Amino acid sequence: MEKFAVLGCGVVGSGVVELFEKNKALIEKRCGKSLEMGYILDLRDFPDRPYGNKVVKSIDTILADNDVTVVAECMGGVEPAFTFVKACLEHGKSVSTSNKELVAKKGDILLKTAKEHNCNFFFEASVGGAIPIIRPMHKCLAANTFSAVAGILNGTTNFILNKMICDSMDFEAALKLAQELGYAEKDPTADVEGHDACRKICILSSLAFGKHVYPESVFTKGIREVELKDTKYCEQLGFAIKLIAQVKALDNGKILPTVMPMAVKNTNLLSQVNDVFNAVMTETDGADRSMFYGRGAGKFPTASAVLGDMIEQVQLDGTISAQTWESADNADFIEDFAAFSAKRYFRTTAADMAVLTEVFGDVEERTISDDEETVCIVNAEMNAAQVDAAVKALAQKGVQVLAQYPVLV
Amino acid sequence: MEKFAVLGCGVVGSGVVELFEKNKALIEKRCGKSLEMGYILDLRDFPDRPYGNKVVKSIDTILADNDVTVVAECMGGVEPAFTFVKACLEHGKSVSTSNKELVAKKGDILLKTAKEHNCNFFFEASVGGAIPIIRPMHKCLAANTFSAVAGILNGTTNFILNKMICDSMDFEAALKLAQELGYAEKDPTADVEGHDACRKICILSSLAFGKHVYPESVFTKGIREVELKDTKYCEQLGFAIKLIAQVKALDNGKILPTVMPMAVKNTNLLSQVNDVFNAVMTETDGADRSMFYGRGAGKFPTASAVLGDMIEQVQLDGTISAQTWESADNADFIEDFAAFSAKRYFRTTAADMAVLTEVFGDVEERTISDDEETVCIVNAEMNAAQVDAAVKALAQKGVQVLAQYPVLV
Repeated sequence: MEKFAVLGCGVVGSGVVELFEKNKALIEKRCGKSLEMGYILDLRDFPDRPYGNKVVKSIDTILADNDVTVVAECMGGVEPAFTFVKACLEHGKSVSTSNKELVAKKGDILLKTAKEHNCNFFFEASVGGAIPIIRPMHKCLAANTFSAVAGILNGTTNFILNKMICDSMDFEAALKLAQELGYAEKDPTADVEGHDACRKICILSSLAFGKHVYPESVFTKGIREVELKDTKYCEQLGFAIKLIAQVKALDNGKILPTVMPMAVKNTNLLSQVNDVFNAVMTETDGADRSMFYGRGAGKFPTASAVLGDMIEQVQLDGTISAQTWESADNADFIEDFAAFSAKRYFRTTAADMAVLTEVFGDVEERTISDDEETVCIVNAEMNAAQVDAAVKALAQKGVQVLAQYPVLV
Repeated sequence: MEKFAVLGCGVVGSGVVELFEKNKALIEKRCGKSLEMGYILDLRDFPDRPYGNKVVKSIDTILADNDVTVVAECMGGVEPAFTFVKACLEHGKSVSTSNKELVAKKGDILLKTAKEHNCNFFFEASVGGAIPIIRPMHKCLAANTFSAVAGILNGTTNFILNKMICDSMDFEAALKLAQELGYAEKDPTADVEGHDACRKICILSSLAFGKHVYPESVFTKGIREVELKDTKYCEQLGFAIKLIAQVKALDNGKILPTVMPMAVKNTNLLSQVNDVFNAVMTETDGADRSMFYGRGAGKFPTASAVLGDMIEQVQLDGTISAQTWESADNADFIEDFAAFSAKRYFRTTAADMAVLTEVFGDVEERTISDDEETVCIVNAEMNAAQVDAAVKALAQKGVQVLAQYPVLV
C-alpha cells in the first residue's frame, strides 16, 4: 500500500483529493497498485469534508511516514512551498506540483535535489492546467531539436481579449466581467501584466532548451494597453490579437523568450483558441508543428494533471524519469529583446499606400483606411529599432503611428 | 552502450535512422546514456547510404545480440511484422512501432507478451504520426474517466475534403491531386473508405476504455459519396464536413466507435484542422476537452514518434510502463451502430420550413433554400431508424432527402 500526501487544500488540492476518490478504482488499475490518500497539509481544518480526518498541521508528519512515496504540492507561491518540496525530495519522496512560480524560480534546484535523492520532481500541472504539455515535450518529442514554442498560457487574458473581439467590450468592461465570473483575481496584475504567462514560458523554455530561464530574463508586456479598435481591425485583416508567450531559437545559438500581445494570423490554430482555453504550439525539426489545447486552469483540470504525474510516479516505482535542466547564467544564452524581429501590424493616422510602402517597403495590399486612420500589415520583419525609425520617418511625412503589434504567422 | 535495431528501411525506417543521426548528441543527453544504431533489417541492400553496412537479412542476428534493448518496427502490415515483433518481445527487447494495422489487430497479444517478458510494447507513432497522443492519454490523463474521443486521423481524406471546401474541387479531382502530391496511394481504398482511420480509432478506444476493440467491430463509412455541394452548404451554415473517427461511452456501460463523415460545428477546433494535419479531441471528467494536433504522417514526423518511444525505453531501463488493455469479446461491450444518435444536417428537395419542423421537430432557424433544394440542421438527436422514419414522412409530403450527415458539436 502506497500513500500520497497533498500540501494545501485550496481549489487545486481539494480537486486532487476529490478526483482521486471519484476515480480510485480506475487509477489503481492503471497504477497496477493500491494507492491511498494519506495526509492533507493545511493550516485550516475541514471538519465537514469526508477527508477532514486526514488533515495534519506539520510537514514532519508526512516526512516521517515511509509509506508516503509521492506528494502533491498545491500551495502556490515560493515559500513555504519551496522548503516543503525540497524536504520531501530530500526524504526520497517524489513531488508533483501545480505551482508555476515555484518551478519558474526554483525548478533547476528542485530537479537537482530530486536526482540526488533518487526521486522525481514533476510539474505537468504548472503549465496549461489540464493540457498534457510537459510530458509530451519531454518524452514524445525527445528526438527533436526545438526551434520555437508559442502559447496562449493565461486563460484570464485570453477571455478578456476574446470578449473584446467577439462582444466588442473594451478592456475595462471585459476585465470586470472576468472578475465577476471568477476568472480574474481582485488584483489582476499577475494575469493582465503577463507575469503568469511569463512564468509558464520560463518553464517551457527551460524544458525545450535544457537550461533554466528565469522570469526576470524575459521581456514581458501585458494586455492593458490593447485597444478595442485594434482587435476589430485585426479581425477584419484576418488576425486575432492574443497574449502570446513564446521562445525562439536564434541562428547565433541563443534563445529569445517573450510575452506580449501579438496579431496571430488566422491560419495559425492559436488564433482560434477562445474563451479561457490555453494552447501551446511547438516547432521542431522532426515533428514540425504540434499543438496542445485544453483547459488552462480550474479545480479538476489542474487536479487531472497533478494526479497524472502521481500515477506515473507510482508506476515508475523508483525509476528516475530524467526530466532535467541545468542552472545557468541567463546572460550567456538569452538574447536581448532588441534583437526580436517580426512582421508588424500598424495603425496610423490616415496615410496613402504610397507613403506606407515608401517607409515600410513590403506592405500587404489589403489595408483598411478611412478619413482618420489607416491600418496595414508590414511583411518585412522589423525589430524595435526599425520600428522606431519607421515611426520617425512617417512623422516626417505627417503620419502618426497610433498602435503597432508584432505578427505571429 | 545500448543498441537499437530498425525493422524495415522504407520511408519511416530510414527517417528513424536519419533523425537519430542528426540529433544523436541531444538524444543521448536526454537518454542519459550512449545509444547506437545497431542493425537495419531489410530484404534490400542500401550500398549508397551511410548506414548501408548495418543492413542484415535475418531477424535472428538482432535477436542474438544482447546489446540490442529496443527495436523500431517500421515494416507495416500484420506479417511478418507480428512474428518479428513477438520474437523481439520474447527475447526481452522492447519494441516501438508505427504500424497501426499491427496494433489494431494484435495489440492485446503483443502487450501481454511484453508484460510477460518484462519489456515494453510502445506505439505512439501508430496514431496521429508525430502527434503525442498515446502517452498523453495513457499517462497525463490517467486520473480521468474518458467519455469520448474524436479525431481527424487520416491526412489523405482531410486533404481531399479540405480541397473540396476551400478550392471547390469535386471528390475525384481532389483525390487525383492528392495522388499527384504523394498524399494518396495509387489504390486509395484504405484511406478513402475509412479503413486507416478505423484502425486508429480501435487503438484509441482500446487505450481509453481498457479492452481491445477490433476493426471489424467498428461501423466504418468513407468519404467517396461526399458531394461538393454539401461541403459548400455546410460551410455556409458554419460547419465543416470531416471524416471523424470517434468513440463514445454510453450510459449503458458500452462504447460506440464509429468512422464516418460528419458535419463538425465551427466552434469545435476539429473543424479548423486543415490540409494533411491530424488532430484528436478527448473528453474526460477531470480535464474536460483536450486537443492534440500535428502532422499525422510523413517520414520525419512519424520517425519523431518512434524515436520518442525508444528514448523513453532507454530512460526507463527495464521498468514496465504498464500500458495495457485486455483481450475482450467485442460483442459484450461494443454497442450496435443502430444506437448511434446525433443532431443531423439534411439536404432535401425544396421544402417549406413548416414541413421540416413538422417532421423533425426542432430545426435551426438558419436554413438555406432555393427553388430546388433546402438544407437545414436538426437539433434533435436522431438515430438511423429515426432518420429512416423522417425520410419516409418527408416523402409522403413530396420532399425527397438528398443527403444527410450526423453533426459533431
